[in-house]
Order: sequence, then structure tokens, then C-alpha cells
Amino acid sequence: MTSPAHGYAAQSGDTPLAPFSFERRDPQPNDVAIAIRYCGVCHSDLHTARGEWAGTLYPCVPGHEIVGTVTAVGADVTRFQVGDTVGVGCMVDSCGECPSCREGEEQYCETTGFVGTYNGPEPVMGGHTFGGYSDHIVVDQDFVLRIGHAESDLAAVAPLLCAGITTYSPLKHWKVGPGQKVGIVGLGGLGHMGVKIAAAMGAEVHVFSTSPNKRDDAKRLGATDLIVSKDADAMATHANSFDFILNTVAAAHDLDQFLRLLKRDGTMTLVGVPETPHPSPSVGDLVFKRRAIAGSLIGGIAETQEMLDFCLEHGLTADVEMIDMADINTAYDRMVKSDVKYRFVIDMATLPPAA
Amino acid sequence: MTSPAHGYAAQSGDTPLAPFSFERRDPQPNDVAIAIRYCGVCHSDLHTARGEWAGTLYPCVPGHEIVGTVTAVGADVTRFQVGDTVGVGCMVDSCGECPSCREGEEQYCETTGFVGTYNGPEPVMGGHTFGGYSDHIVVDQDFVLRIGHAESDLAAVAPLLCAGITTYSPLKHWKVGPGQKVGIVGLGGLGHMGVKIAAAMGAEVHVFSTSPNKRDDAKRLGATDLIVSKDADAMATHANSFDFILNTVAAAHDLDQFLRLLKRDGTMTLVGVPETPHPSPSVGDLVFKRRAIAGSLIGGIAETQEMLDFCLEHGLTADVEMIDMADINTAYDRMVKSDVKYRFVIDMATLPPAA
Repeated sequence: MTSPAHGYAAQSGDTPLAPFSFERRDPQPNDVAIAIRYCGVCHSDLHTARGEWAGTLYPCVPGHEIVGTVTAVGADVTRFQVGDTVGVGCMVDSCGECPSCREGEEQYCETTGFVGTYNGPEPVMGGHTFGGYSDHIVVDQDFVLRIGHAESDLAAVAPLLCAGITTYSPLKHWKVGPGQKVGIVGLGGLGHMGVKIAAAMGAEVHVFSTSPNKRDDAKRLGATDLIVSKDADAMATHANSFDFILNTVAAAHDLDQFLRLLKRDGTMTLVGVPETPHPSPSVGDLVFKRRAIAGSLIGGIAETQEMLDFCLEHGLTADVEMIDMADINTAYDRMVKSDVKYRFVIDMATLPPAA
Repeated sequence: MTSPAHGYAAQSGDTPLAPFSFERRDPQPNDVAIAIRYCGVCHSDLHTARGEWAGTLYPCVPGHEIVGTVTAVGADVTRFQVGDTVGVGCMVDSCGECPSCREGEEQYCETTGFVGTYNGPEPVMGGHTFGGYSDHIVVDQDFVLRIGHAESDLAAVAPLLCAGITTYSPLKHWKVGPGQKVGIVGLGGLGHMGVKIAAAMGAEVHVFSTSPNKRDDAKRLGATDLIVSKDADAMATHANSFDFILNTVAAAHDLDQFLRLLKRDGTMTLVGVPETPHPSPSVGDLVFKRRAIAGSLIGGIAETQEMLDFCLEHGLTADVEMIDMADINTAYDRMVKSDVKYRFVIDMATLPPAA
């Protein structure tokens, strides 16, 4: 009924991640078993492991940017076979029946909510789900993605499963394309994918950053320029000129300075939820240009597949720094200081065997 | 070059409106001269006259919900003739050349901004514009609206020129129609027109009000029901169910209670600018349902004509209380207490002759 698994878990909010053995369900008829090869390290992993968001269930095995190889399939699995290279992102299940699920927007599942790859309710075994900082995972085929990238790219594909879709989905939803001027606020794990994807969609991309130090990198990633958001004069020269702004910064900050850069009918979409509220945005800046502030959450499974295929077609992967599993706690400390360009990825071959 | 005009003006922010004589420009080749018959009383009039917004130019003759009769036309005027019943709303000019003006969205004019019917720069004479609390007005034909309503409806048509278009434009822009559930926050001058127009567009309309006392009125105006916004249980039963919410309340208030009632991809559009900021809206409520908060400002001239024609077709006018010009200060005091159902309209026949 179950098989032994091992990985790295936090046992509480104030203890470091450490080796942990647990059980995975055996593949059900619709399940795919996946040997995990790479797992990206998302800020959500850190927040959840450290109990910085309410509701962490311990032990907590984080990780939702998973790339691996299919090792077994259930009797009813038609879309995958043993040996396939596949991905798993932030979701491993949803109700499948509500309007959002039926429309392929499982991330907005309206009944149970989607089941998170970690810290969600395990659908078969009970208890809670364990994520990708582990040797293998068993997932319903409907939540497994096909990956067509070359073997040499696979580690850098892992972050697409969260950082990629979180930026692709709003860029697509708000119809970013050629002839548009698009802003990306923040150049971190999300932002650097936002730049690559928006540029590949044909837009003129500008990065907003508090520091000019990332200018060369921004251009290398595909941006026309980097605008230092603390430089009021530089900001003013771009007033009323942006079609769309994707704001990836979760820390509380002044939204108005970016709102004022949107054209009439422009939207700024937030993909980060701040721990403390942003200063209240100016209603006048909305009313006098019919602007909007919106939010967006990852993306649906079909759209995640579309994003992976888009990235394959355009040669896009994340800029990653590879780490060993044992270095995860150091990596977390460096993430807090934004000391990563631009995503840590765990090489799961470095996971020590179970004790 | 000029003709004598008279009306009612505030000479400062703390003096009541009183009779005032001034000059209007003679009609230029593209101008229409209009004898004013009715003028609606908008909250903006009060805020401007009393200096509650920055930048009031005194003497201030408010009024931008104007209905009257054409008395003269300039040599190049082709669209109007003497005797026509016409309207003038919030704008009397704009640059005409920027993208927004070219697209018929003069209210978002990107160079000079639109010229307000009062408190704007007078385009020909210099000085500042004087509004509709007066015997006549001279306006460029491009900012004059045709009114096809019956003589008996004309007083109640006046508020359409601001309250009507301010609600019609966002309802149209966000594609309100049959099969949709639409909320109108606040049942005042704007809100009551929002209810009528949204219902005429075919939507199921619910009014949000802090008081249950307006329930019968809400239903009479076309709403399915009135939801008491202070009743948390009543609000909760409508969670995630609205396609669109038009928020007409300018006072600072909790936006989240309404955001949470929007479906996935729903928008709440604000048409009032609060004097002090609303509490900062919840980013989570935006992100987890891809909702948006937007703003909207009156509407363009072509859209105002469309709105007037729509209201004529559907038999819609405002619910008005007629007042004499001399009663304007009392009317302002009552507006502050929301003691009006739902718009005061000045019968300009009561304007005393110039001294």
C-alpha cells in the first residue's frame, strides 16, 4: 500500500531541515510514480518550513518545482510511461468538478481548493502531502507535466514549475505581446523568469529594481533597461507609458509609484502576498486613468504545460545555482538576503541514502 | 465679444452660494449657446464650491449636469440648430489630439487634461470656466449632447450627464449584461443610476447599503435585493458570486468585504475618490481569485451620447427632487446628510434676474 521514501524535512518552525524518512502511497490506477532528479527552491518553501505563514503541518517536506523520471504508472495511466521525463508543480490534486477546475484553472478550485504538493491533505493515505525535497513522489497523472527539454537543461527547467508559471500566466492572461511596454518589478526568482518570458512574448521589457547593480543582468535576461525605482526622476520619465506591470515583490511597498507609470487602461498584477499590507494604493491613480490592480496565482495545469512548451520553443530556462540537499539550510539563509541568481535547485542525486 | 450672464457662485470656501453676474464668450464658429433650463446638483459641486478639494478657483459657479435649449450657433456648427434640446456634462473641451481624445475617451485627455465645465481654464476668454448654475452657457459643439427625451422628462435627464455616464461607462467597459450578477455599493445619486442602468443592461443587480431602510427603494429601482453590508452573515452568503461590483461610495471604507464577494476574475470598480485612503485592500483576496480593483472616470462624449440614447430607449431618468436656485445652500446641507432621493435638480426658471 505504501513505499518508503526519504528526504529533508523541518520538524518545527525553528529547527533546520534534516534527513527524514516517511511513506508514499503506492501508485493508484491513475497515478504516476516519479524519481525526483531536481527540485527548485521557492520562497514559499522557506516561509512554510519556518512557519512564517499560518498553518504549516510538521514534519514539513517542502519543494514544488520538481523534475524527475517516471518509474511506474497505474493501470489507468495513458499519458505517461516509465522513463518519461516529467514535472510536478505546486498542485497535485483538486476537486475537478467546480467551474474553475472544469475551465482548467485548478489553482482557483472553488470547493476544496487545490491540494498543494506539500502541506496539503494527502488524498489517498490521509495526513498531509510531502513535497519535492525527497527521492520520489506519487502524483495523479492529471497533475503531471510533460517535459521535452534536453537532458542538460533539466535542472534549469525545475523552477519553471512555479516561478515560470507564476509569471507566464498573468503575462498571458493580460495579453502581453509585441508592441507593448511591460514592466517587471523585482528581479528575483520570479522576476527573472518574468523578464525572459515577457521578452519572448515580444514585449519591450523594463525591470524595476531598488538597486542599479542588476542592470547588466536585466539586459542579459532580455530587458531593454533597468529603472531604479528609488530614482524619482527616472521613474517620472516613464509616467503613463506601460501597458502592463507584473509586480513580483512580496514585501510591503509603495504601489502608487508603479501605478502612475501605467497607461490608461493599464493593469498592475501582483503575484506576491505581503506579510504586512502595502500602503493603501491611490484611488485617484486608478480612477483618472481607468487603471487596475489585480492579483494572480500560479496557473492551471494545461497552462503550465503550455508554458513548458513555450519555454522549450524559445529556449528559456531559469538561471540556477545548483546545491546539494545537505546545503538547503544555508541556501535558505542566502535567499533571505536575496543572495541567489536566480534560483537554487537541489540536485537530488546528492540526497543521502536513508539511514 | 462677450455677453452678460448671471447665476449663483461661491466667493470663497466658507461663504454660501449667492447671485453672481459674469461674462460668457460670444459663440465662436464652432460654438453652441444654450439657455439652461435644468442643472443637477452633484457632490463634486459641493466639494469644489466649499474648497474641500484643492484648487478651487473663485468665484466658483458649479454645475455640470446641464439641460437646455440652443439659442444660437456659430457659423461652422453643423450638428445643432436653434431650438434643439441639448445637454452638457462634466467636460467642455480637451486637446483633441492625444490617443485618448482620438479614441473618444476625452475624460482621460493626456496632454492638457479635459477642461471642466467649471473650475477649468476658459479656452477662449481666459480665466476659468463657470458651470451650469447660471442662465446660459457657450460650449464647443463637440462637447454638446443631443437629448431626445420628452419635455416632461427633461429635469430628470439632467443628472444623466454626470451620474448617468459615471455609472454607465464602467458597466459598459466591464461588459455587464444578461446572466451576470452585479453589485452596486451605495444607493445615492450615482448608485441609484447604477442600479437602473445595470438592470436595463440585463444583469441581476444587488445593492449594498449600510442601512436596510432603502430595500424597498432598491427593488423599485430594479434591484433584486439589498444586502446590508454591516451584516456579515448576509454578506457571507454571497461570497465568490458577483461578476462585477460598481462601488460608488467615496468615503473611506473596507474594500475587502466586497472583494470577497467577487467571483474568480471579477472586478470591483471605484468611481469615488476618498478624502482619506481606504484601508489597504487585501492582496490575498486579489491573488487567490485573480480579482481586480479598478477605477473609472465619467465617460467620453460619444459614450455619453450612447448612454443618453440607451436611457431614452429604456425609459430611464434619474429620481429627482426639484429645487429653486435660491435653495442651493440648504440642498448642499441636506446632501451632506444624504437626505435626497436621489438627486437635486435646479429649475433654472427660478434663477432671479440679474440685479
